[in-house]
Amino acid sequence: MSYYSPSIEKLIQSFEKLPSIGNKTAARLAFYILNASEEETNEFVSSIINAKKNLKYCSQCYNISDNDPCTICANPKRDHSQICVVEDVRDIIAMERTHEFKGVYHVLHGSISPMNGIGPEDIKIKELLSRLMDGQVKEIILATNPRVEGEATAMYLSKLIKPLGIKVTRIAHGIPVGGDLEYTDEITLTKALEGRREL
Amino acid sequence: MSYYSPSIEKLIQSFEKLPSIGNKTAARLAFYILNASEEETNEFVSSIINAKKNLKYCSQCYNISDNDPCTICANPKRDHSQICVVEDVRDIIAMERTHEFKGVYHVLHGSISPMNGIGPEDIKIKELLSRLMDGQVKEIILATNPRVEGEATAMYLSKLIKPLGIKVTRIAHGIPVGGDLEYTDEITLTKALEGRREL
Repeated sequence: MSYYSPSIEKLIQSFEKLPSIGNKTAARLAFYILNASEEETNEFVSSIINAKKNLKYCSQCYNISDNDPCTICANPKRDHSQICVVEDVRDIIAMERTHEFKGVYHVLHGSISPMNGIGPEDIKIKELLSRLMDGQVKEIILATNPRVEGEATAMYLSKLIKPLGIKVTRIAHGIPVGGDLEYTDEITLTKALEGRREL
Repeated sequence: MSYYSPSIEKLIQSFEKLPSIGNKTAARLAFYILNASEEETNEFVSSIINAKKNLKYCSQCYNISDNDPCTICANPKRDHSQICVVEDVRDIIAMERTHEFKGVYHVLHGSISPMNGIGPEDIKIKELLSRLMDGQVKEIILATNPRVEGEATAMYLSKLIKPLGIKVTRIAHGIPVGGDLEYTDEITLTKALEGRREL
């Protein structure tokens, strides 16, 4: 049984549907909106509507963007011979924050996961392969997540792309900077050992 | 510098303005909205618009409600001779959850706080006093928060209402159920001692 008025209840339920928002946070957010100015509420609502209206997928890399192609693909200063393959749009942001990578991206929008019924044809692999056909691409950097699905996807792509004569690399696994040997799990430590480099 | 498209950035900023939502959660919520169906997004947006449009303050108790008077004030089964005074609309919900209180409420919409420049005239005290004029009210239960501002407000109201010949009570302070003596602060323990009852 709810003690709230129907309109508040509806608003709280709406917020509760969002990820990581529980009942109490939803109520707090709902009351914040109720007490917010007309202007602030309109801005909030229109930012949602505009985002849904304006955003599309880049037809080259499948990044989400206001423009097609996205600003990264459209930038002539980026190295279009190097493609970094990621699972999710947010992974692009993580890479961009390093300021280290000057190539372009390809978003798979998922990873191969037979357990969840996601096969190679369900993610943007076909689209990646078609980008390799003109022979301009020299290197594919596989930056899928270091989890079972990400590893499987990386292996799959590697076997598919290597025969095309394109260099395929995988981002390094190891102990994170600031991490602690003592608290590092065995698999990460094994990977860190395997990936050791001569100084 | 932002790595997101303007529309995403705008959406993330909108979510960031909400209380207790940091940058990472805001990004997660924004991407959830972007991936949500048209229908789900419309429902979310319309719940905000409807709540802002439909909700008003009850002209008797200043609860927020779809109707005026609110369902509690309009309910003839509630005891209108007993008014529980709370600081916030959400405090009503907390009280209602107990299923113990059968009276009606009065929401002050704040508490007296000279530090923040909030005086008695800034909260709904005048409105509470005008409810007492018809002589029907027998008891005022002060359920403001057990903090400096809430206590000050309770004291202020008590001095104002007692001379009218109305019983004024304060909810009990003490050790919460399931609490631990060892971990209870001195002030709460003092209050618990003061409020001891004969068994």
